[in-house]
Amino acid sequence: MTTAKRDTYTPESLLTVAVRVFNERGYDGTSMEHLSKAAGISKSSIYHHVAGKEELLRRAVSRALDGLFAVLDEPGAQRGRAIERVEYVTRRTVEVLMAEVPYVTLLLRVRGNTRTERWALERRREFDHRVAELMKAAVAEGDLRADVDIRLATRLLFGMVNSLVEWYRPQPGGFPGEEQLADTVVQLVFEGMRATGDQDR
Amino acid sequence: MTTAKRDTYTPESLLTVAVRVFNERGYDGTSMEHLSKAAGISKSSIYHHVAGKEELLRRAVSRALDGLFAVLDEPGAQRGRAIERVEYVTRRTVEVLMAEVPYVTLLLRVRGNTRTERWALERRREFDHRVAELMKAAVAEGDLRADVDIRLATRLLFGMVNSLVEWYRPQPGGFPGEEQLADTVVQLVFEGMRATGDQDR
Repeated sequence: MTTAKRDTYTPESLLTVAVRVFNERGYDGTSMEHLSKAAGISKSSIYHHVAGKEELLRRAVSRALDGLFAVLDEPGAQRGRAIERVEYVTRRTVEVLMAEVPYVTLLLRVRGNTRTERWALERRREFDHRVAELMKAAVAEGDLRADVDIRLATRLLFGMVNSLVEWYRPQPGGFPGEEQLADTVVQLVFEGMRATGDQDR
Repeated sequence: MTTAKRDTYTPESLLTVAVRVFNERGYDGTSMEHLSKAAGISKSSIYHHVAGKEELLRRAVSRALDGLFAVLDEPGAQRGRAIERVEYVTRRTVEVLMAEVPYVTLLLRVRGNTRTERWALERRREFDHRVAELMKAAVAEGDLRADVDIRLATRLLFGMVNSLVEWYRPQPGGFPGEEQLADTVVQLVFEGMRATGDQDR
């Protein structure tokens, strides 16, 4: 028999527990019972904070999505040549991901079985689309190569960026550092790995 | 009540069914009962072919690993400058992945709970290490930039390549074509997206 903890949760701290359980068991595989056990409070205490597990999912993926969309409204994403804006957005996307690993992990695993999941998938597609539009603008301005399919390149770019959730764990002073990681992603995608002789600019 | 199908399976065709179920339910979440239902034959018929679900896992991930390691023994991976060999290996890795989507998907999801899973993780690390060694050789020969951390670049490269299993489905004449996909990955990683003015060479 487990002794129920006194409910000192806020919707925010309950969310931290829920996201961990969703990522461990999958959203579909998580019941209110699992959440109640993990949080150490009764199901009715959880219902005191939220309407149910779908509300927790919505809050969690919203946090990841809000972080990503906020990047698009930052001055660095709004001003200057399209190439500078797309590099800025790439760098900041990596940073948001590193700051919000559990939330972005959950977002990336969303499958589309519920209304909230379908909404999250739709928002993800919209974000990818906004970045693809920036890339197209950079092609039109002559700064990105015109011989690469932009839809495919965008998918591959996000494939690389999103793969970080598989192994990146925040660790002060650990390898790689956050800045090094963001720099390397931007370098790889935009400059490539080949030595060109002008890499000191 | 389900009518059991007459057992016309070979170990090979049984493997196809098992890999599908493992990818749908997760290896841990799959029981012999699930495999028996999906194959439409009794559990004892399955035991006639294999010792248990771990043998099926081992056969499945071996198929993916054998495909990947075979690339390293091909002439294109053995001869010439390191940069040409590493580009060759990247292209062929994409091709193996596209040809073996379900098997590579399973390999990438292996977590390390059983001996077979730990063995598979060890083999994956060995493959990544072999590619990282090729990259280092290309840096030493002056063809890859020296200002990028190779361990990190290798992780990001595989992050991009492995992300293909999330969305790529073989489809004759579909978008993107296999060759276009392999070309684009190699271009992105080695040449980058930036227009350089010498892309017609």
